[in-house]
Amino acid sequence: MRIGELSRETGVSVASIKYYLREGLLPAGELTSPNQARYGDAHVRRLRLIRALVDVGGLSIAGARDVLAAVDDEGVSLYDALGRAQAAVMTRTEPVDDDATERAGEALAEMVERRGWITSERNPGWRTAVDVLAALERLGGERVAGLLDVYAEAMEAVAPHEVTAVVDSGDRERSVERMVTGIVLGAALITALRGMAEQSVSARRYGSGPAPGTGSG
Amino acid sequence: MRIGELSRETGVSVASIKYYLREGLLPAGELTSPNQARYGDAHVRRLRLIRALVDVGGLSIAGARDVLAAVDDEGVSLYDALGRAQAAVMTRTEPVDDDATERAGEALAEMVERRGWITSERNPGWRTAVDVLAALERLGGERVAGLLDVYAEAMEAVAPHEVTAVVDSGDRERSVERMVTGIVLGAALITALRGMAEQSVSARRYGSGPAPGTGSG
Repeated sequence: MRIGELSRETGVSVASIKYYLREGLLPAGELTSPNQARYGDAHVRRLRLIRALVDVGGLSIAGARDVLAAVDDEGVSLYDALGRAQAAVMTRTEPVDDDATERAGEALAEMVERRGWITSERNPGWRTAVDVLAALERLGGERVAGLLDVYAEAMEAVAPHEVTAVVDSGDRERSVERMVTGIVLGAALITALRGMAEQSVSARRYGSGPAPGTGSG
Repeated sequence: MRIGELSRETGVSVASIKYYLREGLLPAGELTSPNQARYGDAHVRRLRLIRALVDVGGLSIAGARDVLAAVDDEGVSLYDALGRAQAAVMTRTEPVDDDATERAGEALAEMVERRGWITSERNPGWRTAVDVLAALERLGGERVAGLLDVYAEAMEAVAPHEVTAVVDSGDRERSVERMVTGIVLGAALITALRGMAEQSVSARRYGSGPAPGTGSG
């Protein structure tokens, strides 16, 4: 199909399709003349995946590119693709070398030891967790930092179900696609439900008002 | 202090400080001559907050601006500021009007009813959750969508602790600052710990390998 048909089929504008082509997220179509290309079902599927990762999952273009490269590269194992998807949903932090960072690193290592987690400083989450805990200390958010074990326990309850849900015995490309989708969209779902649960608890505790407003934003 | 001293004090480059001033995230200093301004402790605190929200929390500049406006505007209640912070950490999705969206909306409403949550479609998380569930269905990620109650239960366990941690009896501005920090950085912490917990579970289940790599990305 031509680019116009690809646009109608997926609901993605021609301008956006061209942008994804330029950014290397969508593979080029088959050239049928110097300035016309033909696209197929693989492009339709890929476009849906891009929109899910970027629009619904909130990935940056660079993050989506890295994740999609893992889908396409047969040399990338399922396990490494998992690491890439996890890294893409996490904030990239600039480590600060101060006492708060040192204390945060110790607190995290103790939590991992205490809970018997099999993970290490090489996990993309480790550095982010340390930097978040350190930032909380610097800003007087110790009470939130004190929730480390509450958060860890919640993710411990969730992780076995997630690993079961994303592991797939189909062909490699589809398996990686599904895993990446699950990791990225699952993160967005958790954050959405967190906001709803927080509203519910505060409504129950302090009286039910209207939903928290987002003002004009 | 001059802008150079503000930079040294906070570790934020002069170029970044000027960018935050232009974008309206940092209030202007007091002009001491047509092209020189003086900054104070409030600027130091605000810069630390900006860096935490943007670098560690991963907010966009627009998201940070909206949240900081809530901190500064005395007309915004603590409850509305909570909604703004929640909205800032969520992905903004473009609703698609199809059967998948309708089914997702029903599944979410049933979950809320079943668990007795006091929340509504006006909560910023509601629309995001519906769009995530619909996107998962469209991409063949039904098994992850099936984790809705697993995720909801985890957030139900976390939310009471979070509401306790972020509610503060200090002055309004500090209270809103703390709440916003807790909501935004808490989301980053949850995602980081999720990645670590997933690695731990998959290492335990499939054998312990090295940490999932992020390749060259």
